[in-house]
Order: sequence, then structure tokens, then C-alpha cells
Amino acid sequence: MAKITAHDLAKKQKEISVAAFFERNKHILGFGNQTRALITSVKEGVDNALDACEEADILPDIYVEIKNHEDGECRLIVEDNGPGIVRNQIPHIFGRLLYGSRFHAILQSRGQQGIGISAVVLYGQLTTGKHAKISSKIEEDRPAVVAELVIDTNKNRAEVIGRDTVHWDKPQGTRVEISIMADYKRGKKYVYEYLQSTSIVNPHAQITYREPDGTEHIFERTSEVLPRKPVEIKPHPYGVELGTLIKMAKYTKARQLNSFLKSEFSSMGDRTTNAAIEKAGLEKTLNPKNMTRDEFFSLHKAFKKVKIMAPSTDCLSPIGETLIKRSLKHKTKEISPEFIITASRPPSVYSGQPFQIEAGLVYGGNLPKEETVKILRFANRVPLLYQQGGCIITQAISSIDWRRYGLTQTSGKGIPSGPAIFLAHISSTLIPFTSESKEAIADVSEIENEIKLAFRECARKVQHHIHKEVKRVKTREKFDLITKILPEIAKKSAHMLDKPVPALDAIITKIMDVVWIEDLIEYEKIERHPVQTTLIGETSEEQQGGTITKSRIMVVNYKRNPQKFNLYAIIPEDAVVGEVNPKPSKVTNNFIKWNLDTIPPANKIDVTFELAGLEKGDFDENDLYTENINPAYVIGADKWEGD
Amino acid sequence: MAKITAHDLAKKQKEISVAAFFERNKHILGFGNQTRALITSVKEGVDNALDACEEADILPDIYVEIKNHEDGECRLIVEDNGPGIVRNQIPHIFGRLLYGSRFHAILQSRGQQGIGISAVVLYGQLTTGKHAKISSKIEEDRPAVVAELVIDTNKNRAEVIGRDTVHWDKPQGTRVEISIMADYKRGKKYVYEYLQSTSIVNPHAQITYREPDGTEHIFERTSEVLPRKPVEIKPHPYGVELGTLIKMAKYTKARQLNSFLKSEFSSMGDRTTNAAIEKAGLEKTLNPKNMTRDEFFSLHKAFKKVKIMAPSTDCLSPIGETLIKRSLKHKTKEISPEFIITASRPPSVYSGQPFQIEAGLVYGGNLPKEETVKILRFANRVPLLYQQGGCIITQAISSIDWRRYGLTQTSGKGIPSGPAIFLAHISSTLIPFTSESKEAIADVSEIENEIKLAFRECARKVQHHIHKEVKRVKTREKFDLITKILPEIAKKSAHMLDKPVPALDAIITKIMDVVWIEDLIEYEKIERHPVQTTLIGETSEEQQGGTITKSRIMVVNYKRNPQKFNLYAIIPEDAVVGEVNPKPSKVTNNFIKWNLDTIPPANKIDVTFELAGLEKGDFDENDLYTENINPAYVIGADKWEGD
Repeated sequence: MAKITAHDLAKKQKEISVAAFFERNKHILGFGNQTRALITSVKEGVDNALDACEEADILPDIYVEIKNHEDGECRLIVEDNGPGIVRNQIPHIFGRLLYGSRFHAILQSRGQQGIGISAVVLYGQLTTGKHAKISSKIEEDRPAVVAELVIDTNKNRAEVIGRDTVHWDKPQGTRVEISIMADYKRGKKYVYEYLQSTSIVNPHAQITYREPDGTEHIFERTSEVLPRKPVEIKPHPYGVELGTLIKMAKYTKARQLNSFLKSEFSSMGDRTTNAAIEKAGLEKTLNPKNMTRDEFFSLHKAFKKVKIMAPSTDCLSPIGETLIKRSLKHKTKEISPEFIITASRPPSVYSGQPFQIEAGLVYGGNLPKEETVKILRFANRVPLLYQQGGCIITQAISSIDWRRYGLTQTSGKGIPSGPAIFLAHISSTLIPFTSESKEAIADVSEIENEIKLAFRECARKVQHHIHKEVKRVKTREKFDLITKILPEIAKKSAHMLDKPVPALDAIITKIMDVVWIEDLIEYEKIERHPVQTTLIGETSEEQQGGTITKSRIMVVNYKRNPQKFNLYAIIPEDAVVGEVNPKPSKVTNNFIKWNLDTIPPANKIDVTFELAGLEKGDFDENDLYTENINPAYVIGADKWEGD
Repeated sequence: MAKITAHDLAKKQKEISVAAFFERNKHILGFGNQTRALITSVKEGVDNALDACEEADILPDIYVEIKNHEDGECRLIVEDNGPGIVRNQIPHIFGRLLYGSRFHAILQSRGQQGIGISAVVLYGQLTTGKHAKISSKIEEDRPAVVAELVIDTNKNRAEVIGRDTVHWDKPQGTRVEISIMADYKRGKKYVYEYLQSTSIVNPHAQITYREPDGTEHIFERTSEVLPRKPVEIKPHPYGVELGTLIKMAKYTKARQLNSFLKSEFSSMGDRTTNAAIEKAGLEKTLNPKNMTRDEFFSLHKAFKKVKIMAPSTDCLSPIGETLIKRSLKHKTKEISPEFIITASRPPSVYSGQPFQIEAGLVYGGNLPKEETVKILRFANRVPLLYQQGGCIITQAISSIDWRRYGLTQTSGKGIPSGPAIFLAHISSTLIPFTSESKEAIADVSEIENEIKLAFRECARKVQHHIHKEVKRVKTREKFDLITKILPEIAKKSAHMLDKPVPALDAIITKIMDVVWIEDLIEYEKIERHPVQTTLIGETSEEQQGGTITKSRIMVVNYKRNPQKFNLYAIIPEDAVVGEVNPKPSKVTNNFIKWNLDTIPPANKIDVTFELAGLEKGDFDENDLYTENINPAYVIGADKWEGD
């Protein structure tokens, strides 16, 4: 046998086009089987549509249609009312992998790779041999452009097969039609689930979904307000890699080190900049383009020795506790769980990228007790449906010992079993997905820690809730005994002894010896303003129609002495406070505070407040706290620990 | 606020270089944290080295060194004795992502993406700002080339910083030195584990590993034979995607449809080709370049209606049951498990890519009973260390109900707990990894099914083994009772009655009423030929030195009639059969068969055989079968069901 040499091998060395790479490795993009291919395609289409609308400050109106042909071919249509795409960008956006607007920006968005929608085009042509058809209209008084294209995978460039201008009845928007091989039968329920979950955490979007048999589902818009628009930020010195620093210096327009740092990084004011340069032993007049690797190395090290303000978190747009609760409620609406708990962590940073974790937990009710808990995962408001096992969210949950919270778990590790559903949402300027299919989050320790903290907080709240419940039930028994049975005994005894029935108030108070707080929540449907048509380019006013949530709190003093204390009621951040009685002493985003009048023994005070901007059930349990009273005396509220 | 238009958005649309993409998404490549970064780097270096040597038919001699600096920087050195790399290819192979020789070929190899080693270079420069240093020597009588390079991530091209020629004391080889930020302390044990596992399933490789403190581990070569070299094959019509078919037709040199099919696909002879063309309703003289999408569609559909031979599996190189057993034995050497079981599936195909599953299972002994079972995963002879939860191997194992095999499992799903270790190996021309970090296998249903079948086979063998064991223990008790206590009673009674002790042989035989088979395995160390120095470019002869495995089988007839039957002993495929007594009637790769002489009642026959080419312990349990005898009469062997 002839010896094989380096020259022989060199002949086989070739460049691989990124399109050819993914054509061969389509499973990496989420097209590993035909069920998943369907869901991935819908997801990429919808993500793209939502991002486009939000980027242009438009309330999204999305239309999704699937046509299912007999031979396993599906035609997917996704249409939006976004800004459209200019003619010469269409071939790039749909016909090239690794092309996009959001890759280079540090801000939260769904798409961040420049792969998603062109991957669907690639998969479509690979499996059906058909062209993708893109329609785009960018101005109301101009016609729409329709282009048919394929991707030349050897070059990773689009080949435009046909282009036309047509009339389109829409002021503006984009419509994508792609034929793909897909398993509609199996994928059906996942597509529905994905759209439903998406709609819940994106209440500002209207999503219409037409199934192959013509059934139309409308996931209504329930909020006329776009989420706060994430603001693009600059890299933060704490997370920047040495290599990135060197590269930034190579391309900067700044001529001096100090202006380079101030202009290209976030949180770098004069003082911090000078401190960093001094710690690094460098001159601030140094030209960044002429610095050596060792100088960069010193600077990079110095960053960590200087106190630098955390990056601004305007770039993030979390879901919020109300929507998380609503999402969980939706998942369990036929189950009537015992309670739903949420936790929201403050923003944090990994590798210079801000991120924030929110978590939720449903417990009890008719949830199956024998099965492993269900885990709902979201990233930048996008539901993640696959790769649960490979996701850091699952790993973080599995590393907590849930046994003392009423769940079962082999040796305190692994996904617990029991009547619970977990939800986690990560928002970040760069979600560290394990692959281009964006289905699982990589094991970044900072993120893992925050997820653990969020769920530990949930767990504590669960325990607290159970504890409170037990205490309340016990006192309720005592209360019933005293207020119902005692008078009966008194009456009977008085009758037998032929004496008048004694006044029991003082005795009851003596035996109870607590301040008793009870509450009730009611919802009132109010006339809603007629739904406005889609607002383009202007911010709508807060809509306060819909449902009014009314909370009534009864505070009874069963102590022997008059009581005077402060009461706090926690309210959801996104609720709008209406009428409050008695007059509160303070109202913030998070709570209402009352300095209650003195309550004489055996007397009561009624406290009420109204909340708007919520749906029925969003707020279904009061979270009450007291101040200036021994918490041991109080049933129905906890000690206020400060806000 | 000014309205944001499509034109505004167009300004932000940009091309993303593949290097820039992975620089920002380094977690996708397995560099998500510093522990993993270390292991990924070692892995990519070693995989590359092994592939290069094997491609050039060289027994690999790999040197791995890690230098650990105080500030968290590690210098990784991987050196091989492969064919080296020609000078002008060095910048491409190490300085570009998506460049390689193995991407376009359909054959089994470790690297298949053209990303691995250049990703390490990228990660190194990103985190340390240092250049990678590559040395290559391609011919014994020429000097080596040394190049220092960085990747220009905006262009995905290498920038060569320095190039030199130096003397290198080696006939040929490649040496890679890359500085990376890594957590050596945490990664230490994984690096060792990875190299150890690699060495076990690649016994033809010698791996020397030098730790930062100077400790040197040598993982000895234990086989002087390279694994069968995988042969490159052409795509198979069954798995080819319609889009790929169209693309192949576009680039073919064939001018007629029939020659196109025969020359570019595997398994397409004249008859099959004609049948497919006819079924598609096409003309065989059609020029493939002029065919329409609908014609390709018909052809593609016709492929599935014609019986086409399965693709050749020469392109695969499975590990083999002996090495799997050895690997499992190694993992459990201080635990003395009850038994080790292996199963090997026949090759199968997904999307036109041949693949094969092998599985193994260790059970019992001192393995922890409370913990979830350990799962060892391999792909193309590479151990997979991360992303277990996201891997189809884990999913397949989790979907089997293991409760009836003595393991615990919540509601018969999920990773079971109990005293067991599972091993799975997939070899394929294209491992469908979930991401470029090559740590988990995507959920391809064909693969999942084969993994399940392999483990079900293991499970059946476990049950069979337990059943056999129970039967043997029971009979052993009876045997002891009869052969020890009966003579005692006879002696005592005879003494009391003052009569001679009766002959019991016939009685014992009558009571036992079975053929009893017992066996024993011994190992004998024999003089080994001095280890030859690395063989380059020539195939070594099978080395039979080392250990001789001796199996002794005792067959006793405790039936009342003479017995005559055939005995089969299963042997490992890779063992070499030595002396066999009595003379066998047949010896194959898998078994030895004896037509035993008639055994009179209460008589016995000794059967022995010797095996070479195995290590001590590779063969530690006889698997025996009988033929031409009622299996109910036999203890210690099962019914032969044919080979």
C-alpha cells in the first residue's frame, strides 16, 4: 500500500460554506426530524415577525397559516404588519445564513444569530426543492415587492428566481411562504402550544393561526402597550474578553486610550477610566492602535480591580410577575392548583452581558402526583419546547433538594416528581444557547446561580405559604370553636340556670387574643373602550378598560387592648391603583401602605382597594404585612421587613 | 418619536462572519465556561491528532501537555506522529472555521465539521490575546515548519504572524501549542478521564499525558493493529434529500440520468437504476442538468418504491464487544460488579447515513444503589462528557421501563436509579450532534430506536442471566444436599444397622436427574514479543503475546441414561482460538462447537479451549449452549437457537 502523505491529504482540504455546513447538519438548527422541523419553522417565522414589529414600535399583528399536503409537504405562511424589508435586502435576509441586524447589537431580541429564517428557507428547498416566496411592503402608497428565491448553498448566497411588484391591501408588512417537509399530525399540538404560550407572554401581540382544515384560532391582544423597548448598550469592561478588547482597539476611531474607554464601553466615566488606566500602569494618551498585547493584558486585569458601575439594564425586557402568573394559570386552568408563586431576580451579568431571571411555581390541586414536574422554559419571551434535558434551567432545578417542599426526588437530585409546574424565563442581550436551534441554554455558572436563587426564593415562599396556611387553619378552628360553640354553650347554660345569657365579646377576645385579618378578592367587568386598530409609530395610552380587581380586607381586633399599627398590601407592578379606602399613607409600584386608626377591642376596620390593568385572576390572593405590632398577635399577615 | 422604517432597519443589516459568530457564541463550541473550555480544547486537539494518524495509516503516538499559569491561563500542547500538514494549508486548517477534509466525505471520522481545532485557536486568542503556534513536519529528511497565527474574525482568515523552519527530531508529525483561559483545577479529573476513556476504546493509540506538575501518565498502546479503515462511500438513494438530489444533478459530470445515478450513488446497479427511472416515468437518456423540479420529485419518490441494497457498512468502524467490556471493566475495577453485558446491533441507516449502535451494561456489586445510573456515551470512538441530558442516548434509556430489571424509576420513565452503569457507542458517517461542540446526539428517531433495541437486548440478557443464576443456585443447593448429606446418612444408617454402606451413585443420579455443566476461566501471562516501535505505513501482524485465556468446562451426566449432545461455547469476535480439547466440530468467529462423545450415567467429560489476543478479564464468563438434548435436563447451559 502506498504511503499516504500530507500532500495527499492537502488535496482533500476544502472550504465549507456555512450554508452547506447547515444543510448537512440541519439537526443543529432544529430540523432533526419532521415534527421538530415544523415547530422550528413556525417559531423562526413568528420570532422574526415579532422582532421586526417591535423594532419599528408597531403592535404586532401576526398571521400564521399551515397548509398540509398529502405527501408530507407543508406550506407555511407567516405574515406580519411590521415595517417590511427594502427590496435589495430581501435576498440577503432570506437567502444567506449569518446575516442580520441584531447580531452586533447588545440588546435583548429574539433573533440574535442571523440564521433563523434563512435556515427555514434552506430546509424548505432541501426537502421539497421549492422556492421560498417573500412579499414585502414598506410604504402605504407604494406597491409590494414579491420575490422568489433559493439559496445557493455552495456560496451561501440567494439566487433570485423571480421578482415582481403587486398590489397589497396592507399599509405595510412582510409575508413569508415556504414549503417544507414536515409531520403536521405529530407537530399539530406543539404548534398550537407554542403560539398560545407566545401569546401569553407577549400580550401586546395579536396572533391568528389558521390550521390546514380551516380552523382559525385567534390569540387576542390583551395589552395595547408595547413592552418597554430595550435600549442598545455598549460592552461592559467587566465581561469583555481580552481578545475582544484588542479587537475593539484595532477598529476604534479614538486616538487616545482614555477616549477609547469612555466612548466604546458602558459605565466608563472620567473617574473610572482614569482609575483603570492608572491601575494598569499605562498612559491615558496612549494610542490604542499601538498598544502591545501585554499592555492590553494589564488593562484587562486592571478593569477587575476598579469598581465599575453595573451595566444599565434598559437593554432588558423581562416578562413581569403578572404575565408569568397568567401563563401558569393558563397551563393549569382545569386543575385548580393550590397556589401560584413567582420570583423575580435583580438583573445580573455574565461575560459582560446583562441578564435577568424570573421564575414561577404552581403547586397542588389536581396536578399529577406521580409524574416528574413539568418545566416551562422561556428565553427573551420565546417558549423553548425542545432539549429540556440539555438546558441549564433543568440542571439548576435538578440540583435543588425539593424533598422538604413536598416533592419526591431520588437522593435529593434530579427533576423532582409531584404536583408542581416550574417556569423560568431568562432575558438577556445574548442568550447563551447551546446551539443554533435556540432550544437550550448553556451551562454558564452565573446564570445557573441566578436560576437557583430564583427557585430557592419560590421554594421559601412555598414553605412560607404552607406554614401560613397551617397556622390559619388552626386558628380558624379555634375561631369557629369560640365564636360558634361558646355562645351556644353560654345560651344553653344560661337557660339551664335560668340566668341571662352573658355578654361573650370580652371573653372571646380574651381567648382569641389575636388580630384577625381576612380578605376577599372580587372582579368586576367594566365597559371596555372599543379596541383601537393597530397603532403604528405612536405609543398608545394605558388602557384601563376590561376588569377591575377589588380587594376587601377585614381587620378585627380580638386583643384585649386597642391596637394601632400599619398595614401593607403587595400589588403587582403592572397594576394601576384605583380607589383605596381608607386613605393610604403611601402607594408605590409594589405596595399600598395604611397607617390604620386605633382599633378598640372587638372592633373591626374594613380596608379596600381597586386595581386596574389586570385580567380576571391575575391578582387572586392578597399578600399582607403589618408593622408596629408584635407579628405573633396577627393572623392573616406577616411582619413587614421593609421594601 | 420619528417612525422607524424599513430603510432605517436596512442600514443595520450586516453579514456576520462565521468566526465572529462563534467568537460571540463560544458556548456553542463547548467553551461556555473555563472548565469545559479546557476539556473541549484537549478533545479537539486529540481528535484531530487521531484522525490525522489514522487517515495516513499510522499507529498514533500522541503527546498531550498542559502548563498551568497562575492567572488562569493554560498552555495546551498536543503533538502527534501523523503525516504533518503542508505549509500552505496550516493557516487554513488552524486559522479558519469551516475548513477541512472530512466534511464532504461520507465515512466515519471524529472530526466532521471543519471547526474543532480552529475553534480552540479562536478561543485561545479571544481569552489570552496570544498567537497559536503550529509545527509541522511532513518528510523525514526535511526540516519542520513552525507558524504563529491568529484568526482575523471579521474575515474568518488566518493572519500569519511568523513563520520559520526548524530542525525537529521526529520523522514527521504535527505539534499544536495554544494558550487558553481555563480552569485546570476543576477540569483536571475530566481531562484525565477523557484521555483514559479515549485510550481504552482506541487501543491502537499510545497517549502520553504530562500534567502541569510534571506527572506523566502513559496510556499504553495495547493493540498494534489499526482499526479497519473506514471506506468512503457515495450517498444512498434512500436517504438523499430532494434538494440534495437536485444539487448533485447540477454539479454532476454525467450527461444522462442513468449514468448519473450509477456513478454518484451507492447501491445503484444497472437493474436498480433502470427500475427507479421507470417507476419515475422518466427517460434514462435525460440530461440531469435539464430536469425539472417535478421530474426530480418523481425520481425521489421512485427511489422509495424500488428495492435498493442497503449501503455498504465498510465506512463504519465499531468499537467491538471486547473493548466495550474492557471499558466498563475499567470503570468498575474497584467495585467487582456482578456481571457485564454487551449488545451490538446490525448497521442501520438514517437520512442516507449508515450508523451502528453498540451497548453495554454493568450490574450489581458495590455500585451505589441509591443514585441514578451512570451513562457512558461514545460517538465514533470519542467519549462524550457533557450535555448528557440533551442526548438521544439518555432519552432512549429513559424511555425504557427498567423497574423489572431491578432498577428503580419514577413511573417507569426517566434515568433509572440503582447499581448499574450503561454504555452506548454510535458509529456513523455523520453523527447528528445537537451542536458544534459535539457533546450530545440529536433526536433522530432511527437512532433512538436502535439504541432502545440495543438496551432492550441488554435488559433481556440481564434477566436471562439472573434467571440462570437463580436456577443454578437452587440446583447447587440440591446438589450439595445430595452429594454431601446423603452419603453421610447412608454411612450413619449403615453403621447403625451394621450393614455395608450402600453404593449411592445410581441413587444420586436418579435424584439429580440433570446434566451438570460447570466451568472455570484462568489467565496465563506469556512471554510477550518486545513492543515494536511505531509502525508507519505498514500493517503489523496480529500480535498474540500477552495473556492466554484458558477456559475449562466440566460436563457431568447425572441422568440415568447415557447422553449424547452438542456443546457450543461463545467466544469474542476479536479473540484468536488456540488449543481446543476435545477436537471441536466447528470454530467460527463467534463460537466453538463440539459433538461430544456419549457420556454414560455418573460420568464426566472435560472440555477446554484457549483464547489469545485478549487481556486478562476480557473474557471472564463462559456462555454455553447445548443442542440435541432437552434443555430442561441441563444446568449451566441454554438451548442453542442457531447462529
